[in-house]
Amino acid sequence: MGMTVSQKIIASHAGKDFVAPGELVNCKLDVVLGNDVTAPVAIAEFAKLEMDRVFDVEKIVLVPDHFTPNKDIKSAEQSKIMRDFARKFGIKNYFEIGCMGIEHCLLPEQGLALPGDMIIGADSHTCTYGALGAFATGVGSTDMAAGMATGEVWFKVPESIRFVYYGAMPEWVSGKDLILHTIGDIGVDGARYMSMEFTGEAIARLSMDNRFTMANMAIEAGGKNGIFAADDITRRYVEKRARRPYQVYQSDADAGYFEIREYDVSKMEPVVAFPHLPENTRPVSAAGEVSLDQVVIGSCTNGRLEDLQIAASLLKGRKVHPEIRLIVFPGTQQIYLEALRRGYIETFIEAGAAVSTPTCGPCLGGHMGILAKGERALATTNRNFVGRMGHPESEVYLSSPAVAAASAIKGRITPPWEV
Amino acid sequence: MGMTVSQKIIASHAGKDFVAPGELVNCKLDVVLGNDVTAPVAIAEFAKLEMDRVFDVEKIVLVPDHFTPNKDIKSAEQSKIMRDFARKFGIKNYFEIGCMGIEHCLLPEQGLALPGDMIIGADSHTCTYGALGAFATGVGSTDMAAGMATGEVWFKVPESIRFVYYGAMPEWVSGKDLILHTIGDIGVDGARYMSMEFTGEAIARLSMDNRFTMANMAIEAGGKNGIFAADDITRRYVEKRARRPYQVYQSDADAGYFEIREYDVSKMEPVVAFPHLPENTRPVSAAGEVSLDQVVIGSCTNGRLEDLQIAASLLKGRKVHPEIRLIVFPGTQQIYLEALRRGYIETFIEAGAAVSTPTCGPCLGGHMGILAKGERALATTNRNFVGRMGHPESEVYLSSPAVAAASAIKGRITPPWEV
Repeated sequence: MGMTVSQKIIASHAGKDFVAPGELVNCKLDVVLGNDVTAPVAIAEFAKLEMDRVFDVEKIVLVPDHFTPNKDIKSAEQSKIMRDFARKFGIKNYFEIGCMGIEHCLLPEQGLALPGDMIIGADSHTCTYGALGAFATGVGSTDMAAGMATGEVWFKVPESIRFVYYGAMPEWVSGKDLILHTIGDIGVDGARYMSMEFTGEAIARLSMDNRFTMANMAIEAGGKNGIFAADDITRRYVEKRARRPYQVYQSDADAGYFEIREYDVSKMEPVVAFPHLPENTRPVSAAGEVSLDQVVIGSCTNGRLEDLQIAASLLKGRKVHPEIRLIVFPGTQQIYLEALRRGYIETFIEAGAAVSTPTCGPCLGGHMGILAKGERALATTNRNFVGRMGHPESEVYLSSPAVAAASAIKGRITPPWEV
Repeated sequence: MGMTVSQKIIASHAGKDFVAPGELVNCKLDVVLGNDVTAPVAIAEFAKLEMDRVFDVEKIVLVPDHFTPNKDIKSAEQSKIMRDFARKFGIKNYFEIGCMGIEHCLLPEQGLALPGDMIIGADSHTCTYGALGAFATGVGSTDMAAGMATGEVWFKVPESIRFVYYGAMPEWVSGKDLILHTIGDIGVDGARYMSMEFTGEAIARLSMDNRFTMANMAIEAGGKNGIFAADDITRRYVEKRARRPYQVYQSDADAGYFEIREYDVSKMEPVVAFPHLPENTRPVSAAGEVSLDQVVIGSCTNGRLEDLQIAASLLKGRKVHPEIRLIVFPGTQQIYLEALRRGYIETFIEAGAAVSTPTCGPCLGGHMGILAKGERALATTNRNFVGRMGHPESEVYLSSPAVAAASAIKGRITPPWEV
């Protein structure tokens, strides 16, 4: 029996020729990632080991992105712990304010996450790097500490579900809509502890930015990881960024899947997830009259150049509705710079949007756009749990950047073709 | 006996031909200003009056700038109180996130503060509008509430101190250096409850942006207000912005002053205020070796176009020191847009600065750049009190944008001519 792409990456990092779902394996790590919420906890755990070195100063990546630029004294202390640790142990990939970005936008851009990699990150959306054909999964801070010490992690080989997307994508339908539709179909635990393998002719044509969005939300269906086997689109993305060799894997034709699910994307339209779960999806045309207070475009899910491009194309020459706060968060400094050079930032400011330096910001209720009681936001982010963006009695709706931009103009959830 | 420009504005708004220092007067108001910290308190006070209207829907200005985009649930609720109040009472000048800026940069830019105006604001740096030849002073939230109800305010006519600046300004010396030097000379209560009137040949040549910086810091010497009699430079600034008529006043030749102080600016160099008071000034060349963790360029003191221009001129083609977080805050969306069109924003990002949407941010220890224990910041802001920017054991140094930009490059307090 053959192996899936996920199994192959696991096997290669476990020093085995074959691994089967359910097997417990110990894998060598290519990247160990932490942010300003999780890394300080991991650093405290690591300190208990009384080691004078980490396993590899090139393979640990520290990104203060959640409550930065420092929201308050507590977050300033958290960032300082990371900074001091990076200096003390000579960590090469610590990204300071001004050179940084949202971790899951930053690592691929910097060539730090590559096809065939085994990556753990103390952040649930670490699964994003599956877009590159890496096996990437979120872990707790204790696992991160062990990873920094040993360069290895134990885990159980997951089953795989193969998702096949066929047909031509209609205008305005994006990777965000595919993944929201999928989560709406299988539910928020529909892929619990499984590999979500995204395949099919529609995927073969999908840009990297759209793939990142899809892989990013695998965890929202409970997935252990989400993965796209690397292809020419992946190679074009990584060849100018990679700082080290990488390996490309494909699933075997006789690989075993727990399940295969097929979707005809030609019948899809943009999707909105209603409060308070990403699975509460509706086609945007069936959203009804939903007035909004705030629209957020950005995050590790949709803060990349193509996301800003489509938002700018809709906002160009138009104004944000006077009762809407539109906040735009480029994913990294590089994305911000490129968006600026292409005129998108000018478009956003002319339209009446607040454009922030890269930060996770309001996505997790952190800062820079928190909701008051009774307020309602549409966001291109990944979670709309109760109180996710502020007050427990506020509401978050999830959508693509196109729907978000259209809705910012109209002041209510609006299909992009209506502006 | 003649009157000073401050006396003349007070007299005209009190319906009198003459007012003398020490006299208690009731003045009609042209502007009543509040922000997201102070306006909610004033709105609660106003509610006790059970009035169904404010005195003038054009003359109340509400700007959520201190903890916005909303830092947390509490600040979100504060902004919501302002927003709901503005909608309920039909306040014309409520500035939403995305259309706003730091209040004291925004009002002059929008033509809402004009020469000859009588302005109160529930913010200590309301004195900024003195740069336009207005009488502008900070008040408490209760006075703001009374002002919104009646359009009037009681106060005691202040004595005036006349500051005369003569000589040619050396390169790199700015309005910030003049006002820091002055505060260093007279102390933080050297002008307590007095009008600080800025005059002299060096002032006659000073740009509006530099004048705003000086008037802004009058309160740091304890001044009731700071004022520049309007001249052609003022007229050029206001003629394209004014939405209503205004009156220009000059001090009489025989006006009475409490004191006259003269400064030869040709002998000055850029000034740095050391912790923990703005009066602890030293010439930058005598600053010694002061390493830094963070540099902040922006705020109601130095977040205007000329400030960004000089910072960009130094940062162009250079990089922020790897151990420095440089955070740049344009004062308003318009300033941000113009800075972007002139290439300054691109320069900042290329240099490795975080560029924020307009907000008061870290200046008051609000958010977006708070200091941890033991950290040290150089800022173009106005106050360096203990704990002003974060932890009680952090330190803030004050300077011009030129010194700040040079120091961000070098990682320590540095004169601009050394980069």
